[in-house]
Amino acid sequence: MNVLITGGAGFLGQKLARRLLEKGSLKNADGVETKIDRLFLFDIVPAPDFSDPRVTVVTGDIGNESDLARALDAQTSSVFHLAAIVSSQAEADFDLGMRINVDAFRVVLERCRRLGQRPKVLFASSVAVYGGPLPAVVQDDTALNPKSSYGIQKAIGELMLSDFSRKGFIDGRGLRLPTISVRPGKPNKAASSFASGIIREPLNGEDTVCPVTPDTRLWLLSPRQVIENMIWAHDLPSDGFELNRMVNLPGVNVSVSEMIDALRTVAGEAAVAHIRWEHDATIQRIVGSWPACWNPERALAMGFKGDASFEAAVRAYLADDKR
Amino acid sequence: MNVLITGGAGFLGQKLARRLLEKGSLKNADGVETKIDRLFLFDIVPAPDFSDPRVTVVTGDIGNESDLARALDAQTSSVFHLAAIVSSQAEADFDLGMRINVDAFRVVLERCRRLGQRPKVLFASSVAVYGGPLPAVVQDDTALNPKSSYGIQKAIGELMLSDFSRKGFIDGRGLRLPTISVRPGKPNKAASSFASGIIREPLNGEDTVCPVTPDTRLWLLSPRQVIENMIWAHDLPSDGFELNRMVNLPGVNVSVSEMIDALRTVAGEAAVAHIRWEHDATIQRIVGSWPACWNPERALAMGFKGDASFEAAVRAYLADDKR
Repeated sequence: MNVLITGGAGFLGQKLARRLLEKGSLKNADGVETKIDRLFLFDIVPAPDFSDPRVTVVTGDIGNESDLARALDAQTSSVFHLAAIVSSQAEADFDLGMRINVDAFRVVLERCRRLGQRPKVLFASSVAVYGGPLPAVVQDDTALNPKSSYGIQKAIGELMLSDFSRKGFIDGRGLRLPTISVRPGKPNKAASSFASGIIREPLNGEDTVCPVTPDTRLWLLSPRQVIENMIWAHDLPSDGFELNRMVNLPGVNVSVSEMIDALRTVAGEAAVAHIRWEHDATIQRIVGSWPACWNPERALAMGFKGDASFEAAVRAYLADDKR
Repeated sequence: MNVLITGGAGFLGQKLARRLLEKGSLKNADGVETKIDRLFLFDIVPAPDFSDPRVTVVTGDIGNESDLARALDAQTSSVFHLAAIVSSQAEADFDLGMRINVDAFRVVLERCRRLGQRPKVLFASSVAVYGGPLPAVVQDDTALNPKSSYGIQKAIGELMLSDFSRKGFIDGRGLRLPTISVRPGKPNKAASSFASGIIREPLNGEDTVCPVTPDTRLWLLSPRQVIENMIWAHDLPSDGFELNRMVNLPGVNVSVSEMIDALRTVAGEAAVAHIRWEHDATIQRIVGSWPACWNPERALAMGFKGDASFEAAVRAYLADDKR
C-alpha cells in the first residue's frame, strides 16, 4: 500500500514516518495488515534525513492540486493529513490560515474524491476547537465554540472530513489532539510552543521563557503517544467512526507549575533555573480559551491511550528525542 | 441606512423586505433607530412586485464578487444573508451546496471585511446543523454533528460568521431557524417542504403528498415569527453575541399527526382529505436526523419569541399569506 503524510517535514510528520517505516505495515480498508510499499512525505520544505528506499520526499504547495498530485494518486490507500498553519500564526495571518487549514484540506479531500478510491484520511484536529464558556470538564458532546482562527479552521476541517466521509468520498478519521508536550526541535509559532519549550530547553541546558502564569492549566499528550494513537485510529474498523468522525484523545490535565515540578523531579533545580517568566497576554488569552480537561470517554472505549503522567511524557522525550 | 437582503427573491427575503419597508427603520451600530434609505434585494432571479422607491432589485451570482458589488458597498450598514441552496438540493448536488452555502457566504464576508465598515450581518442557519445521536431535548450547548451536506455547510457558515466577527471584520448575528411552517408559495427542494405543503395545499383546496410517517416530530416556527426574530436579532446590542454568535430560535415541537389535527381544527375534515401518504425514505432520513425539540433558553432570555402553538401558525398563514 501507498501512504501519504502531509506536513511530512513537521515534527509529527517525521516521527510518524519513522514509526511507520519501523512498523512496515498498516491495516488496509478490509482490516488486513498490509505492507507499506511507498511512503510519500509532502511538505513545503523537504523532510530531512530519510534514506529508506520506500520514502519519496515531495515538496510543494498543498493548496495547489498539481503539486499534491505528485504525492496523492489512485494508488494512495491512506492519507495522514498533518499539514497546518499553527495557532499563533493563523491568528496573526488570517488569510494564510484559511488558505492552508481550510482551502488546502479541501483540495486534499476533493482530490481523494475525484480519484474515487475512498482512501482512509486521518485528520489531526486540536483542543483549540473548544473555547468560550466551557464546563469544568469537557465531554465528548460539548459544543464547539472556538475563540481562535486556528480553532475555527480546524472545526471547519472536521465538518468537511465528516461530510466527505458520509458521502462515501473518503473514509475519514479525525483526532482532536491535546497540546503536544514534550515536542522535540525548536520553538514554533504555536501559541502552545512554550508547553514544550519550558521542559525541552532546560533539559538541553538552555534558557527559555514562560509566557503564561504558573496556574495555567493544559491538556497534554506526548508525541510518542500521539503517533501511537494516529496509527490506532487508522487501523480501527470504520464502523466506529460512522456516527461521529471525531475523537477527543486522552491527555493529562496539569498546571504549568506541575509541569515544572515534573522537570525538577527528572532533572533537578538547575534545570528549572533556566526558566524566565515573561508574560504574553495574547498567548495567555489563546491558551486560556482551550479546555484544560476533557473526559475522553469515547476514545478510551475505542482503545486510544494517554500518558501515565506528565513525568512519563518528560521521560519519553529523554528516551526518544533528546539531542 | 442601506440594507441588503441576499436571497431577496425567496419567500423569507420577500417577507422580510416588506416588513422592513413597512417598519421603515432599524437600529444602527450605535443602537439608534435609523431610517432605511435604500433596500437592496439580491438574488439569482429578480425579486417580484416591489415598486417602493427605496428598493433596488439586483440579480446576479452571489458567489461572484463583481455581481455582489452592485448591492453591497461601503454604504451598506446591514446584511441579511438568506441566500442558500436548500437541504434536499444540497444533498443531491454536493458541489452546488458547497459553492453557495459555503463559498458564496465567504465572498459576502470577505467583501464586508474589505469594505472596512464592520456591517451587521444576520445569518440564517438551521435546525439541520444538529444530527446524529442527540439528547431528547437539545440544549444551547449540545454539540453539532450534522448528517446532511446542508447541515454541514450551514455549520461551516456559523464558524465563519463567528470568526469574522471575533476578528472585528463584521458584527455577526446568527439564528438557527426551526423548520418554517406554514410557508407560502410552491413546494421547493427543501427536505422539509412537506411541512408547509401538508397544510398550505389543503387550505387552498389542493391535493398534497406527505412523505414521512405521522409520528415524525418537527421543531416548527411560522414565517411571521421568523421575520420578527430576524429584526430583533439585528437590533439587539452586539455584546449579547460576543461569547456566542449563534442563537437557537424558539419553536413548537409537534408530530405530523398533531399538525394535521391543527389543520382539521382550522379547516375541517375536507381539508385533511387532500393529504395523500407516500413514503420517501431519503426525506424521512434527512428530516429524522434533525432535532424535534430544543430548549431555547438563551433565545428566550434575549427576548426572541416563538408561536403560541402550531394552530396559531396555521392561522398566521391564513391571515398573512393565503391566496
